[in-house]
Amino acid sequence: MQLLPLQYEPILRAALAEDIGAGDITTLSTVPDDAEARAVMIAKQDGVLAGIAVGCRTFTLLDPHVFWEPHADDGEQVRPGQALATLTGPARSLLTAERVALNILQRMSGTATLTRRFVEAIHGTRARIVDTRKTTPGLRTLEKYAVRVGGGHNHRIGLYDAVLIKDNHLAVGGGVLAAVRKARAVAPHTMRVEVECKTLAQVDEAIESGADIILLDNMDLETLAESVRRISGRALTEASGGVRLETVRAIAETGVDLISVGALTHSAPALDLSLDFSV
Amino acid sequence: MQLLPLQYEPILRAALAEDIGAGDITTLSTVPDDAEARAVMIAKQDGVLAGIAVGCRTFTLLDPHVFWEPHADDGEQVRPGQALATLTGPARSLLTAERVALNILQRMSGTATLTRRFVEAIHGTRARIVDTRKTTPGLRTLEKYAVRVGGGHNHRIGLYDAVLIKDNHLAVGGGVLAAVRKARAVAPHTMRVEVECKTLAQVDEAIESGADIILLDNMDLETLAESVRRISGRALTEASGGVRLETVRAIAETGVDLISVGALTHSAPALDLSLDFSV
Amino acid sequence: MQLLPLQYEPILRAALAEDIGAGDITTLSTVPDDAEARAVMIAKQDGVLAGIAVGCRTFTLLDPHVFWEPHADDGEQVRPGQALATLTGPARSLLTAERVALNILQRMSGTATLTRRFVEAIHGTRARIVDTRKTTPGLRTLEKYAVRVGGGHNHRIGLYDAVLIKDNHLAVGGGVLAAVRKARAVAPHTMRVEVECKTLAQVDEAIESGADIILLDNMDLETLAESVRRISGRALTEASGGVRLETVRAIAETGVDLISVGALTHSAPALDLSLDFSV
Amino acid sequence: MQLLPLQYEPILRAALAEDIGAGDITTLSTVPDDAEARAVMIAKQDGVLAGIAVGCRTFTLLDPHVFWEPHADDGEQVRPGQALATLTGPARSLLTAERVALNILQRMSGTATLTRRFVEAIHGTRARIVDTRKTTPGLRTLEKYAVRVGGGHNHRIGLYDAVLIKDNHLAVGGGVLAAVRKARAVAPHTMRVEVECKTLAQVDEAIESGADIILLDNMDLETLAESVRRISGRALTEASGGVRLETVRAIAETGVDLISVGALTHSAPALDLSLDFSV
Amino acid sequence: MQLLPLQYEPILRAALAEDIGAGDITTLSTVPDDAEARAVMIAKQDGVLAGIAVGCRTFTLLDPHVFWEPHADDGEQVRPGQALATLTGPARSLLTAERVALNILQRMSGTATLTRRFVEAIHGTRARIVDTRKTTPGLRTLEKYAVRVGGGHNHRIGLYDAVLIKDNHLAVGGGVLAAVRKARAVAPHTMRVEVECKTLAQVDEAIESGADIILLDNMDLETLAESVRRISGRALTEASGGVRLETVRAIAETGVDLISVGALTHSAPALDLSLDFSV
Amino acid sequence: MQLLPLQYEPILRAALAEDIGAGDITTLSTVPDDAEARAVMIAKQDGVLAGIAVGCRTFTLLDPHVFWEPHADDGEQVRPGQALATLTGPARSLLTAERVALNILQRMSGTATLTRRFVEAIHGTRARIVDTRKTTPGLRTLEKYAVRVGGGHNHRIGLYDAVLIKDNHLAVGGGVLAAVRKARAVAPHTMRVEVECKTLAQVDEAIESGADIILLDNMDLETLAESVRRISGRALTEASGGVRLETVRAIAETGVDLISVGALTHSAPALDLSLDFSV
Repeated sequence: MQLLPLQYEPILRAALAEDIGAGDITTLSTVPDDAEARAVMIAKQDGVLAGIAVGCRTFTLLDPHVFWEPHADDGEQVRPGQALATLTGPARSLLTAERVALNILQRMSGTATLTRRFVEAIHGTRARIVDTRKTTPGLRTLEKYAVRVGGGHNHRIGLYDAVLIKDNHLAVGGGVLAAVRKARAVAPHTMRVEVECKTLAQVDEAIESGADIILLDNMDLETLAESVRRISGRALTEASGGVRLETVRAIAETGVDLISVGALTHSAPALDLSLDFSV
Repeated sequence: MQLLPLQYEPILRAALAEDIGAGDITTLSTVPDDAEARAVMIAKQDGVLAGIAVGCRTFTLLDPHVFWEPHADDGEQVRPGQALATLTGPARSLLTAERVALNILQRMSGTATLTRRFVEAIHGTRARIVDTRKTTPGLRTLEKYAVRVGGGHNHRIGLYDAVLIKDNHLAVGGGVLAAVRKARAVAPHTMRVEVECKTLAQVDEAIESGADIILLDNMDLETLAESVRRISGRALTEASGGVRLETVRAIAETGVDLISVGALTHSAPALDLSLDFSV
Repeated sequence: MQLLPLQYEPILRAALAEDIGAGDITTLSTVPDDAEARAVMIAKQDGVLAGIAVGCRTFTLLDPHVFWEPHADDGEQVRPGQALATLTGPARSLLTAERVALNILQRMSGTATLTRRFVEAIHGTRARIVDTRKTTPGLRTLEKYAVRVGGGHNHRIGLYDAVLIKDNHLAVGGGVLAAVRKARAVAPHTMRVEVECKTLAQVDEAIESGADIILLDNMDLETLAESVRRISGRALTEASGGVRLETVRAIAETGVDLISVGALTHSAPALDLSLDFSV
Repeated sequence: MQLLPLQYEPILRAALAEDIGAGDITTLSTVPDDAEARAVMIAKQDGVLAGIAVGCRTFTLLDPHVFWEPHADDGEQVRPGQALATLTGPARSLLTAERVALNILQRMSGTATLTRRFVEAIHGTRARIVDTRKTTPGLRTLEKYAVRVGGGHNHRIGLYDAVLIKDNHLAVGGGVLAAVRKARAVAPHTMRVEVECKTLAQVDEAIESGADIILLDNMDLETLAESVRRISGRALTEASGGVRLETVRAIAETGVDLISVGALTHSAPALDLSLDFSV
Repeated sequence: MQLLPLQYEPILRAALAEDIGAGDITTLSTVPDDAEARAVMIAKQDGVLAGIAVGCRTFTLLDPHVFWEPHADDGEQVRPGQALATLTGPARSLLTAERVALNILQRMSGTATLTRRFVEAIHGTRARIVDTRKTTPGLRTLEKYAVRVGGGHNHRIGLYDAVLIKDNHLAVGGGVLAAVRKARAVAPHTMRVEVECKTLAQVDEAIESGADIILLDNMDLETLAESVRRISGRALTEASGGVRLETVRAIAETGVDLISVGALTHSAPALDLSLDFSV
Repeated sequence: MQLLPLQYEPILRAALAEDIGAGDITTLSTVPDDAEARAVMIAKQDGVLAGIAVGCRTFTLLDPHVFWEPHADDGEQVRPGQALATLTGPARSLLTAERVALNILQRMSGTATLTRRFVEAIHGTRARIVDTRKTTPGLRTLEKYAVRVGGGHNHRIGLYDAVLIKDNHLAVGGGVLAAVRKARAVAPHTMRVEVECKTLAQVDEAIESGADIILLDNMDLETLAESVRRISGRALTEASGGVRLETVRAIAETGVDLISVGALTHSAPALDLSLDFSV
């Protein structure tokens, strides 16, 4: 599901302004105005590429005289030393946009890479890896794209596009049955209603409420499996809570439909990339 | 060095809009309009707190009827279960702002926490841990603040506030001597001039050029130590390149003045936090 | 489902700037700086009020010295001559903000009023009146709120929060079965999948595809009724296409679950309101 | 008087973002990335076209690979079934921009259509149909353009470009004579001064004050005619207040110069348009 | 004609961000967080104060804990050493906002001061000093206010609020008669039509055209006087072109109604102000 | 050090919107839609050109069908009557953008021109003319560029890129020694620390503090010379305070390194320019 320039160009423009400010004094003072250069974007680690068009667009937004040719596609597994794209054009522009382009690309690729590892860890099970709303302020659309590129699926985008009744809503707003009924009455017919459960008693109540999706939060494997059994297809099941690469397969094998992993967007290390210049 | 509302409120406003969109349908449908609540922000991991005022301001930006009381200060080492702040006010507002507040606070605290670990690793040496421009697009001012909170120092903020001549500038713009001279002629008198060296020959040239700071990039420990010896105080020395917690102390012991660590801002895992409600 | 200041204040601010520009020269030249006034907002037509807090907030955004007291709530049926709110404060501020406040309030109330008429027309049937994406650019969140105030329900908010496969998608992307399957594979698990049908043959295919919602577009009453019969609860049914007040009840009586009406937001006449001043 | 891209492109950009948000999931999941399509914009009602360049620009703003050819001009009377423009390009882009383009074009055309009906109703008299400030927040420039396209004229654009002393100013600021004198002393010499009168006594005072334009508000036809007689060319005369298609000709025949109609912009029904695709 | 916060607060906010960026490192490092201070804004030159509320608002926008008390009003003639306002509050906030506050206040006061000098130079004649569109990008509303504070009047605000047919329009669009007629047909009835003349022949044509205002551009005194004679009240007369303090009285004495002076806004030197601190 | 479109295009866009608003009614009503024109930008005074690309970009931002050819470069000394650029394209676009283009170009050239005069006045001495933060709100980057074009150098850009401890900081924060030490501990290693001195005693303390730059504020020539002698190269020296063209050479001859002149940006008269049309 591709990204649109409308979605990422304002982010790039703001990031360039943030970095360049009153001017790239180093480049302007040391590099001649008419110097042309060629630069190759290189992967320095194993990982999954995400955002190649976004990263390269950084350069052409700064200067339409830059041209770029991609050598890899989003979703591709890349290896250290692999060329990802070649950029040619005014040397000053390549140097000035370099850091912003890499910052965005290595973050998106970091999320795609971590997602891919989770997806591979549950290979052969029926579960989907999904993201959360634990994203970086301002970058949600890009990070949710990176999750898809890594083979994951998106959970809801924000507070506005699905109902997810969590423990704090129940603490304030009443029990599972009442909450699901109230949400169903108000929510658009296009949305599903999901409710969080921490105990088997809540799971029973959630089944009775007719919730579309049941979030099984922080349960041990046994309780998880029992929950899936009790629900037995009457609702989608989602496991969440401190899911790690070491634990995700066992969770998937309980038969849940979805496993949500906050770390995909809040703690993925950046993928190491660099830009190598020649004149 | 405190943050100003002017610096973070626009980020919070945009993040709230990004998450809330057309409305928090779950909260609006399940929680009564007049319900009041009390919520405590809790640390769930060991770490260094950064951004407590920013995180709590999220709630009051959404709704001025929320009040907050901090129980910990930025820079404080926090333990699992420790209460960081108490929020009271309309339950809906607490629920709607929760995720954005945590997203920003756990990211800033993540950076402060990782910074503190690097700073402690070199305790007793003369080196400073400094950050880089490898920050999240849109969040640079906040992340650089978090580095300071963790005990690190800031390197330049952007391309505009210091000269840093890197290998790519030299590749396009000529040798160290010429580049430093050109930069010095153009740059404001308030800025220092830094130049990147990868070899001892470049270090000698950098010394001769009168550079204020010499960046020693990706050198082994021996070359690093020899560089520091040759420079012997005529310029500040900065080590950079793949610095890790396991390697940073040895690097510091070569006698460099500064060690720059990109991971502080591009790969710090979020600090786990939660919000616990009572009615 | 209340609106948040975060959602309407930027709209009000922009509208005030659009109207005031370099200054309200009439008020500034004819009304003394220290004059205080009292103004009552009055309904001049029968209708449903929507946006009273939004309309009155216009005045206090311009000048925090204005105070307002509402006399009617959103959703209330109002009569000609009925007082809706009283505003007191600096006369200049009341005069300068008047038009913008009325412009937004009479538009929102116009949509709520038309919605109420459709809702009443189908009273006693099982159908819901829902809106469409045929909203005014920039005002969608406010208009969708006004539909809810009038007793209608919201359809999806935008292109991002539900799948709705229309004839043009099918024209380009293939048949109903394939399209639903592709959408299901990609869409978040929180979203339902809706597909538009114009013929009974398409309805049969839609049932087979397992679509969650079937949009029955521009069908005559007989075909509509037959479609509902064939679907018989396996999917939600939505009627659309040139629905008018005169025809909506017969449509509802075919047993459809939802009736979408574009006119609610694209052609609702404004509700006539005025502001009466006394000194 | 043509519109400039500077005036409408920010509106289109915001409207596209409002509708697309995190992505057009239906199109992205059901239509192949490389599908090309051809779509024809069609009128489905009689009316006056306004904003064809604005509507079509929506597509090319989203995707510069879309090309468009207009078949009708702004101001043209169109008939049901008439082709207004042909768009060719990537099928996904045509589908994603469709609704926003139609939303804006059908609103502008709705205003032009209603204006034309008022203009035709007074054909042969000396009066001009003019608009008011009762416009949609954020769309004033576009709606005032649509009024001109329909054959109407613009009244002042906002509070800043003309003096219009209304009853509420007089209620707070004193009588007609004093108010006109104060306005004249302050207003730029380029602006005319208009004053609202509800009675013949006020009309006499307005004549004496030397006002450039006299607004005759909510008068019956006889009083209107008498007012025009008394003024006899010493000021422009404007009739206002609940003007309808059924009453406008009689008003015009009293000899007034201007008739202002709020409904042109606050209650014009949208002109029905559609986009027909072929592959 | 007072300014509204809506008109100047966005300018102040942007100016503070422009100056503060990532932080006021000097203040943050040298001044304790809890230091309170008292600062007095002082005039260091003779001049006319304009923008005192704007200047002082800068401090409270940065920090609502600052309080200010004005000692002089806009339009007041101030003398060197005169206290204009006292500010009290957190020392850091006073220091950080100081420069932006002074920058805006000394510019506005500079324009008011120069305007006053022109106004005084023509004292006793019937002419008005008016400004032009030669203003600073982004600050037009503030500068036009400062002209009024200095005793001048505003010409049109922009291209949208009056017709002014200049030589370049005539060069491209035809003669005076045709141009005035075309403008009259299109322009709102609230606007006056002004036309620029460089020769007596053009003046005769302008009179015949029925233009409301005749701009007499770059004429010598004799031609100016002859033009005023020929027009003899049938239109307002405006003199323009390189008007200086030394020449303005003679121009006024030709009997023109208006004298426009671009220098008021494009070349007024700033009024020297300072901020004196005590602890 | 060239400007980037990223830096000036948002300013131009806002300035065009500010001037054009709802439309250039004069041009639209008097100039045919299809008229083409040729216009030459002409200097009307001696001065230094700055911003030719910025000025000409105004036209192409409004209308990409305009073409421009420069005849002079930034930094060039221009004479009255000299052609600076030729613009060709739609006559309406040339007329509508004219004023904004000239406003920005004549301001930037005004600053460059005044800077050049100061630079020439100290020719042969070792001093640099530098600017201050006394710039126009919103235009700092452009004005600092114009100073460089005129042969001056930039002082710090804002509060964030250098330490400058002024008298007000010392008043609140303690003596020179302590303040410099505190700043050095906090400031990034890339920044120099400057401190303001008004007396020789302070100068001695500043030397002892190890400040990198010593600002000698408002000293008479003798004290200035004595300060330079005492500092004797251990810090850069900067003279400031009411520097005028008549006094600057004597100041430079005291041996200071830098002379800062606020008037370059706060009081430079605009350079007179015009646009001459032919059809």
